[in-house]
Amino acid sequence: TTEFDPTEHPHRRYNPMIGEWVLVSPHRAKRPWQGQSETPDTEQRPSYDEKCFLCPGNTRINGEVNPKYTSTFVFTNDFAALKDDTPAASNDDPLFTMATEQGCSRVICFSPDHSKTLPELSISEITDVVNTWQAETAELSKTYNWIQVFENKGAMMGCSNPHPHGQIWAQNQLPTLANKKLVNFAKYQQEQGSNLLEDYVKREVESGERTVCLNDDWIVVVPYWAAWPFETLLLPRFSVSRITELNDEQKASLADIIKQVTTRYDNLFNCSFPYSMGWHGAPFDGQDHQDWTLHAHFFPPLLRSATVRKFMVGYEMMAESQRDITPEQAAERLRAVPATHYKENI
Amino acid sequence: TTEFDPTEHPHRRYNPMIGEWVLVSPHRAKRPWQGQSETPDTEQRPSYDEKCFLCPGNTRINGEVNPKYTSTFVFTNDFAALKDDTPAASNDDPLFTMATEQGCSRVICFSPDHSKTLPELSISEITDVVNTWQAETAELSKTYNWIQVFENKGAMMGCSNPHPHGQIWAQNQLPTLANKKLVNFAKYQQEQGSNLLEDYVKREVESGERTVCLNDDWIVVVPYWAAWPFETLLLPRFSVSRITELNDEQKASLADIIKQVTTRYDNLFNCSFPYSMGWHGAPFDGQDHQDWTLHAHFFPPLLRSATVRKFMVGYEMMAESQRDITPEQAAERLRAVPATHYKENI
Ligand SMILES: O=P(O)(O)O[C@H]1O[C@H](CO)[C@@H](O)[C@H](O)[C@H]1O
Ligand SMILES: O=P(O)(O)O[C@H]1O[C@H](CO)[C@@H](O)[C@H](O)[C@H]1O
Repeated sequence: TTEFDPTEHPHRRYNPMIGEWVLVSPHRAKRPWQGQSETPDTEQRPSYDEKCFLCPGNTRINGEVNPKYTSTFVFTNDFAALKDDTPAASNDDPLFTMATEQGCSRVICFSPDHSKTLPELSISEITDVVNTWQAETAELSKTYNWIQVFENKGAMMGCSNPHPHGQIWAQNQLPTLANKKLVNFAKYQQEQGSNLLEDYVKREVESGERTVCLNDDWIVVVPYWAAWPFETLLLPRFSVSRITELNDEQKASLADIIKQVTTRYDNLFNCSFPYSMGWHGAPFDGQDHQDWTLHAHFFPPLLRSATVRKFMVGYEMMAESQRDITPEQAAERLRAVPATHYKENI
Repeated sequence: TTEFDPTEHPHRRYNPMIGEWVLVSPHRAKRPWQGQSETPDTEQRPSYDEKCFLCPGNTRINGEVNPKYTSTFVFTNDFAALKDDTPAASNDDPLFTMATEQGCSRVICFSPDHSKTLPELSISEITDVVNTWQAETAELSKTYNWIQVFENKGAMMGCSNPHPHGQIWAQNQLPTLANKKLVNFAKYQQEQGSNLLEDYVKREVESGERTVCLNDDWIVVVPYWAAWPFETLLLPRFSVSRITELNDEQKASLADIIKQVTTRYDNLFNCSFPYSMGWHGAPFDGQDHQDWTLHAHFFPPLLRSATVRKFMVGYEMMAESQRDITPEQAAERLRAVPATHYKENI
């Protein structure tokens, strides 16, 4: 009988954060690709673009004029998916269950410089972004239970403007994924008597197999259960449940690790690496949530090169996520690229 | 106080099949789109392409020669994600849970004609496809518990060859989504004393609000909880749990309804409409599953036109699915297009 080889044999891995499985089919990476190819983002943009809605001093679609900001800049989304004045209504018919939602959605410009992306900002500029995430979360958490900070980077990820920016959507009800984590973190704490992600960090630091980069406070791994080819999980090496609890040192070291991981992403295929990233801290529902460790996800779509992405379609939409290279192989490739951004060498 | 208006106010709807919510933000459809645009598929292809791996008589990558088939043609995927000779192995460490999987994956060519897609085939030709789905499922169900029949249509959906074809992946363990349905169908049956999707069909036939098309045996609706803009659910109007149970009449009327819905899809934006579709019948685990009704999903990515798709990114990846137009508006638009394929009028 053959022995199990994770780089050869199809197997399923369990994601304990959401209670779902992923199919790993490593040998499939060998198949030739004749499908759609993407346009890689390798363009050099100007520092200021007069047609950009997000550049300092420019006029937005709704007629408002952006201030001549010099660091970060936050405004309410002109086409918000959530609003604070939605009337209350609900229906608990088991086949037609619904409830209205109140909330708000804001845009966060990371820098006045139109040409830059996160890895190209200095650590002190990225610290400004972290400070803004923290301040916005603190303010919105007075009104809302769930504060979703995220960034869609690149046209491939539905981003319609290359100016460096992210979003923050706040709402009262726990979204589907947040609720799954709430359940699974509590279940683990109850069954194991410890914090799921704290235990996980210890194991990953020990093993090193899936580590992409780390500093004294933070670690980035391709999680054991990653669905996207180069998906990563950013985790603290200290106890913390929410972004609002970070002190100045922890925010500076967070800026450092963000620069490290996004630089490695760009260096993998020498392009501005597309992804969606976002933060998951404990809900602001008046509870403690000692079982919840603050963390961020990066979900990048690329698979083989700057032009060939992974499609989550067909089997993935009908059955479960499926990946072609192992998380260990992905981590190894991200470790192998230079730590300095490829544009700095030009 | 304002009254709740589903076409105006953000609200969440509950998907009782998988126990998850969707955020509906109808007013967001008004925002301008400056992001990525897709290449619509409006190309007229030849009936035979000598470079196509799926055309009759051609040689595939592994050197095998396709027969000169005249109806459907099935072969084992040359780069299968599942294999039958995978050694058994598993680990129940709560943070590193895994299990190997045995299975097989096959390709189903729908027609020898390279230029055709499902809506362009005759009802009798589509009946051949249904017969093939049924025969393959019957055979594979002798060995495997879960038989996933699906089609990825269009380059936008990761399909690398326009020759009309689908796939079938069979395996022993229940995939994540199948397992969610297993749990929720049983829960509904227990709580309500009836079959979830049978009850749902009755309510949708009565209301008509979300109906796209129907015949005596089948109905297609944009489900109340649809995530993708023009997502549809194909349901039987009689009791049936698995595709293997369909009789000749039901298969012919199924071919008719498939032609109807895929024709309406193509007519919406006058292009070959991309989607992933797939069948969910009860597992072949030796149980009865009276609470499980056979059904098919269509998940199409397009939102505004043949070139502007919906991106499930950022908020959707971190929180939950979000849609811009209501399911009722989507159904109305699919009902409003001609029932005859646009190419037939050229
Ligand atoms: O099997 P194919 O057509 O080569 O590949 C396509 O379908 C598979 C199953 O849905 C997906 O995993 C792939 O990402 C997609 O490109
Ligand atoms: O809000 P934006 O940037 O206009 O839109 C983008 O992000 C949203 C939130 O992730 C998604 O719902 C949209 O599909 C995407 O295009």
